[in-house]
Amino acid sequence: MPMPGTGGGPLTGVTVVSLEQAIAAPLCTRHLADLGARVIKIESPAGGDATRHYDDVVHGMAAHFVWLNHGKESAALDLTAEADREVFGRLIANADVVVSNLAPGALGRLGFAPDDLVARHPRLIVVDISGYGRGGPYDHKRAYDLLIQAESGSCSITGTPDAPAKPGIPIADVGTALYAYSSVLAALYDRERTGRGAVIPIAMLDVMGELMGFALNTVIHSGREPVPVGLGSPMVAPYGAYPTRDGQTVVLGTTSDREWRRLATDLIGRPDLAADERYARNIDRCARRAELDAVLADWCKRHDLDDIRARADAAGIGNARLNGVRALAEHPQLAARGRWREVGTPAGPVPALVPPALARGWPVVSGRVPALGADTDAIRAEVGCAPAATATPGQPA
Amino acid sequence: MPMPGTGGGPLTGVTVVSLEQAIAAPLCTRHLADLGARVIKIESPAGGDATRHYDDVVHGMAAHFVWLNHGKESAALDLTAEADREVFGRLIANADVVVSNLAPGALGRLGFAPDDLVARHPRLIVVDISGYGRGGPYDHKRAYDLLIQAESGSCSITGTPDAPAKPGIPIADVGTALYAYSSVLAALYDRERTGRGAVIPIAMLDVMGELMGFALNTVIHSGREPVPVGLGSPMVAPYGAYPTRDGQTVVLGTTSDREWRRLATDLIGRPDLAADERYARNIDRCARRAELDAVLADWCKRHDLDDIRARADAAGIGNARLNGVRALAEHPQLAARGRWREVGTPAGPVPALVPPALARGWPVVSGRVPALGADTDAIRAEVGCAPAATATPGQPA
Repeated sequence: MPMPGTGGGPLTGVTVVSLEQAIAAPLCTRHLADLGARVIKIESPAGGDATRHYDDVVHGMAAHFVWLNHGKESAALDLTAEADREVFGRLIANADVVVSNLAPGALGRLGFAPDDLVARHPRLIVVDISGYGRGGPYDHKRAYDLLIQAESGSCSITGTPDAPAKPGIPIADVGTALYAYSSVLAALYDRERTGRGAVIPIAMLDVMGELMGFALNTVIHSGREPVPVGLGSPMVAPYGAYPTRDGQTVVLGTTSDREWRRLATDLIGRPDLAADERYARNIDRCARRAELDAVLADWCKRHDLDDIRARADAAGIGNARLNGVRALAEHPQLAARGRWREVGTPAGPVPALVPPALARGWPVVSGRVPALGADTDAIRAEVGCAPAATATPGQPA
Repeated sequence: MPMPGTGGGPLTGVTVVSLEQAIAAPLCTRHLADLGARVIKIESPAGGDATRHYDDVVHGMAAHFVWLNHGKESAALDLTAEADREVFGRLIANADVVVSNLAPGALGRLGFAPDDLVARHPRLIVVDISGYGRGGPYDHKRAYDLLIQAESGSCSITGTPDAPAKPGIPIADVGTALYAYSSVLAALYDRERTGRGAVIPIAMLDVMGELMGFALNTVIHSGREPVPVGLGSPMVAPYGAYPTRDGQTVVLGTTSDREWRRLATDLIGRPDLAADERYARNIDRCARRAELDAVLADWCKRHDLDDIRARADAAGIGNARLNGVRALAEHPQLAARGRWREVGTPAGPVPALVPPALARGWPVVSGRVPALGADTDAIRAEVGCAPAATATPGQPA
């Protein structure tokens, strides 16, 4: 099984120490490991990252944990104990990057406030993830993906007006992870040129504010609340999901006036609609969305999915199948392009996708998912500390 | 009005040329501009980025366009014309980064295939965004956010089993943008050490595959399709949105057995439930989700929102208000932490959020939103080309 951090990617030689749990910090550091960084995941000896216990579907391991943690080492440290805080401090002294998404203020209470760390280690890059940022009336509130999605209005523009919904992908968590990840890379680049590290505070609410930018502009300048449109697109019409004759669901529509004329003429054989002034401009079609949805729905239910897709492709009209997750796992485009590989786990190899956005020539690093504390003693020895006594269950960090 | 690219951030001195449209490439390059890069947005003289025309809510400009394009220069070039391709080629020769999210293969057809560019300019970093990646049966299919979200199963885990929904935040687009952004930063870091540029292909489908990792693991190993749970959380129970006595909606719940006991005992005054073996473990509570939802719903409808939130905070139970977008615009936590600033536009300054994840000490770059072609002649002069003749409307690039 390949050792983590030896893959030869662009972050080879970079060491990351992460006090992490759940999704936001673990996805950030997993992508750092994907680029060749050595990632040391610090976990409480009392159970470790709670994500380990979400379920047991992957040979006894949790789906989330396996997704987020391959390519890392695990050191079980009880940071309420002085001896383990000493190990942690020595690890930091040798590290390039520290990432944390503990509860608000927890790093400081442990004696490792981000500003103090960078004062002591001027080349260190410290990423401090919180729900609401430091200061302000929400400073110390707990934050999970669903809570931040609710608080930020993300759920209000998802689903239908009567039934708002949380996006299934935990976008507050993964968005925060991706901003944390990019900020580490920006700080590493900056450090190459200035020699200085950085303290990077990231608040999940700020991340969602950024990603809601289009909706914020609408509300601020028009006063209108955006309305969720189910499977449609709020900006263009017609666009939506329509049942087909063979019991599938096709998603298609138009993004421009030119496309609309092609759709009407070349796809559904209605040049009369293409010529109809009432539907000429997108703003008019949005106002008459229901009429055009009915036309498309009627046409789709009289044709089979494959036929619709082939005709739409030929007419230059975007189209997709409304897929479940099984269809993604079996997606011919992922298979044809060799996007699957294996990663190691304590229960043997499992399939995983190659991470997106690797430059041509960068290696695919395929490190293992660590068992809780798998690397504790090796890491203690590395920083000159004795092996742990029999693990004393403590409070989670 | 501050000039773009002069903010002194970590990417000062980096020049980005972007053949971009819609969301994925524009959000990537906007964040590069946020860090001080000079971003030259290439637009067709015939209308420019289609996003300019989505709507007119921001003093005549589109909500999406204003969100995604401040801090950039705009050069209107007709890349179907040899003279303008010459300008583009000279811009690339001086650039550090080229980003493109044109239609599949368009860069190559224009004579600027990514591999050729890097062969000619070995330090150049080229990001080539597509819907489905190169090769495979979906190679040349059109790809928009809704289509990729449908194709990747994201909609199938959002909403309800009877009414799947597209997440309102265009996660296929913004996820792709954030991977493109981080890949540029990783390649810049790598170039500092190796002197070499990079070709970085990014497919929206691969991005969604990554972000669906937890759901893929579930399907692959259990055979079970994840079921969308509206405003709930699929992994833990009870967790959801409950109407309050004063007509608001609160979101709350538990993420661990310990939290569950606190919720039952300290928040809703039901120590009998905390002691009930049937609800002791999360897996049991998930199986009895409906029973516990009913208990929480009944309690919440007898209390006011502020009271519930104060009590939940005191009990250490995460909680949020189900907000619309107006509430995000007016969110006290964003105001208290000074997260709003102004950016310039042709119609005067407008409010915008400070980008997330800036290191302490990095400046907040507040460049303007460019009018179409605002910088064309200055940029032509800079590379030794004459000003454009009266713009000849051509095909969009």
